[in-house]
Amino acid sequence: MKEISGGVCAPKGFKAGGIWCGIKAGSQKRDLALIYSEQNCTAAAMFTTNRVQAACVLVSREHIAGGKLHAVIANSGNANACTGEAGLAAARRMAELAADEFALSPAHVAVASTGVIGVPLPIAAIENSIGALANSLRGDASGHAAALEAIMTTDTRMKEFSVEIEIGGVPVRLGGMVKGAGMIRPNMATMLCFITTDAAIDRELLDASLRGAVRRSFNRAIVDSDTSTNDMVIIMANGASGASGAPRITAGSGEYETFARALEDSCIKLARAMARDGEGASKLITVTVTGAADETSAETLAKSVAASSLVKTACFGADANWGRILCALGYAGAEFDPHKTGVRFRSMAGEITVCVNGEPVPFSEEQAKKILSGEEIEILVDVGADGGSATAWGCDLTYDYVKINGDYRS
Amino acid sequence: MKEISGGVCAPKGFKAGGIWCGIKAGSQKRDLALIYSEQNCTAAAMFTTNRVQAACVLVSREHIAGGKLHAVIANSGNANACTGEAGLAAARRMAELAADEFALSPAHVAVASTGVIGVPLPIAAIENSIGALANSLRGDASGHAAALEAIMTTDTRMKEFSVEIEIGGVPVRLGGMVKGAGMIRPNMATMLCFITTDAAIDRELLDASLRGAVRRSFNRAIVDSDTSTNDMVIIMANGASGASGAPRITAGSGEYETFARALEDSCIKLARAMARDGEGASKLITVTVTGAADETSAETLAKSVAASSLVKTACFGADANWGRILCALGYAGAEFDPHKTGVRFRSMAGEITVCVNGEPVPFSEEQAKKILSGEEIEILVDVGADGGSATAWGCDLTYDYVKINGDYRS
Repeated sequence: MKEISGGVCAPKGFKAGGIWCGIKAGSQKRDLALIYSEQNCTAAAMFTTNRVQAACVLVSREHIAGGKLHAVIANSGNANACTGEAGLAAARRMAELAADEFALSPAHVAVASTGVIGVPLPIAAIENSIGALANSLRGDASGHAAALEAIMTTDTRMKEFSVEIEIGGVPVRLGGMVKGAGMIRPNMATMLCFITTDAAIDRELLDASLRGAVRRSFNRAIVDSDTSTNDMVIIMANGASGASGAPRITAGSGEYETFARALEDSCIKLARAMARDGEGASKLITVTVTGAADETSAETLAKSVAASSLVKTACFGADANWGRILCALGYAGAEFDPHKTGVRFRSMAGEITVCVNGEPVPFSEEQAKKILSGEEIEILVDVGADGGSATAWGCDLTYDYVKINGDYRS
Repeated sequence: MKEISGGVCAPKGFKAGGIWCGIKAGSQKRDLALIYSEQNCTAAAMFTTNRVQAACVLVSREHIAGGKLHAVIANSGNANACTGEAGLAAARRMAELAADEFALSPAHVAVASTGVIGVPLPIAAIENSIGALANSLRGDASGHAAALEAIMTTDTRMKEFSVEIEIGGVPVRLGGMVKGAGMIRPNMATMLCFITTDAAIDRELLDASLRGAVRRSFNRAIVDSDTSTNDMVIIMANGASGASGAPRITAGSGEYETFARALEDSCIKLARAMARDGEGASKLITVTVTGAADETSAETLAKSVAASSLVKTACFGADANWGRILCALGYAGAEFDPHKTGVRFRSMAGEITVCVNGEPVPFSEEQAKKILSGEEIEILVDVGADGGSATAWGCDLTYDYVKINGDYRS
């Protein structure tokens, strides 16, 4: 797998674009995005588990049921959630507008929204700008960047990937973008994520590879333990690599392994980037639990540590308060033996052991402070049994998180 | 039920005291407390559900199994958790020291600790001061206050109650104290709480009344969703009111109802006070859910709203971002119909409806800001079905929470 550039436009046959249509009235930042494939794509998706589901989630879920997508239209600045029948009509209208531009079936267009909840979506702004949006499409990195900018809210960094793998000796590409920042909780991390590929792959396999990748990536990224009403991850595979001779990816094949691994690694990269760019975050916190009963137990333990407000604030303060880590393990809900548990901290500045067999060991507070002052901190927990390990990603809890969320709407 | 003064010393036959023994080396604030009953008491208790349990929890759980207590000895500044065999020995020694002073069985002494985790308890400091601690006992409000001060950590207010009820026409009293502030999560809210009463009541009834009261009070108070390793609630009933002619409280009687109600109301008062005094809190947030399927559903929904970091920061910013409330209801895990859900905000400054049937209604942002700027905010949610209602208490998430927890140990 090699890294390339281009984001969602790296795979053959995809274009993207983004414009300002007026939803973000104040900032005049881009707020409307389109990702378009010349060929109809095999598609798979995952959606929020929140019982309150935005109109775009309802509509996209319906459209994806057919397994085919030609385009995704997305806006930021307004979540179109808790907006009733009018909101649902607006989401349908968004799909229709994009479909009409390219003479597609609206059922082959997915719709996504992100932003404030409970405010009617100004659909007229989108209607007025749909031509400009279509004109903004580009098949290169600039198109990708414009679309990505247009789905960002409190995000401060571009979170994206593009990679090339070989399937049957022929280059096949995957590209993706994600917006995250706040309302990021495991079990469908909160976000919009759009992934493209020119691989030729059946729906069931695409779906299986997406579920596997999301489980080990976005579902282990935590910012504030709030699950949003709008989350979705969509992958579109247009099969365009077939024209260069890439074989169709089949179940149980080495090619499937290669594809699934590339997708998982790329989603992990996005999940890490999302945690690092958590609202107000100054540090990425990577929590790895080893020696658990199984992977699920390890995941439960790692996520509990990454989600703890007290661990997050301690990391912010570069305070080696490892008791809070034991405490978060203790209420995680997974079996483990506290008396066999050890904790280490690691960063670019070094590594330090602070707890062995559930008890304190002497360590240099100065050295610990230095390690915890890094921008990327690893918390390494071993619970002393065999087998299960898992990694979760989170970020520190800072003054800026409070500032950003104290008055988000204005 | 009438409010009186005296705290845990209000009921007949109880004394309390508190001193500085040197555990809080820096601040020289009181750090060692004792509550003592002249008569051996019928006792009941509840403990943390964390799998990592402090030494004091293990020892007190063992001692309370006999159903009898004469005294509680408690320290602040050190949690004596994750401290291994030495920690367990130190907790046993604390009970022994208090027992020796009054020629009691150590099994009739409960032990509690609160403070930093993973630091060996300096038991010598307690050994050297046990005489002074015994001498500090007083049977009045000053003794209560000294003991309460000695269990406080980041608490900024005294959280206490004392009430008088009539049992068979004879005055019976209850008094209590609680320390809370951080690591407060529902399902055994994090805290130390000691309650005394001169009621004459059997162990089973005392236990039942405590469980009922805790369920509707401390288990619905939330600060940061971290469950500590040290939580305990202890109630001691010495039966001293019997000397004035108060009858023994029996199962199913009106007297039991009176007693249980007084205990529940008092615990609710403490739970509210604990949320209001949450670390860094500037506001008390009371979330009441009505119209749920049953009380348990209503409780689940109310707690999810009170625990949401995004709701908490919005309250801090006096921002009527009700979409976050719908969102928190949606991921709570209880069934409800978002399309029948309404939200109102209330405080001393008035009341405002912001959402009806899951959709926005026009409201004055200015008026909403005024209401949400109150020190006590009520979030009133009706989910449109019948029956179940419940209230949870929380607080806002502020810069000060981050500050307090960014460097707790120093």
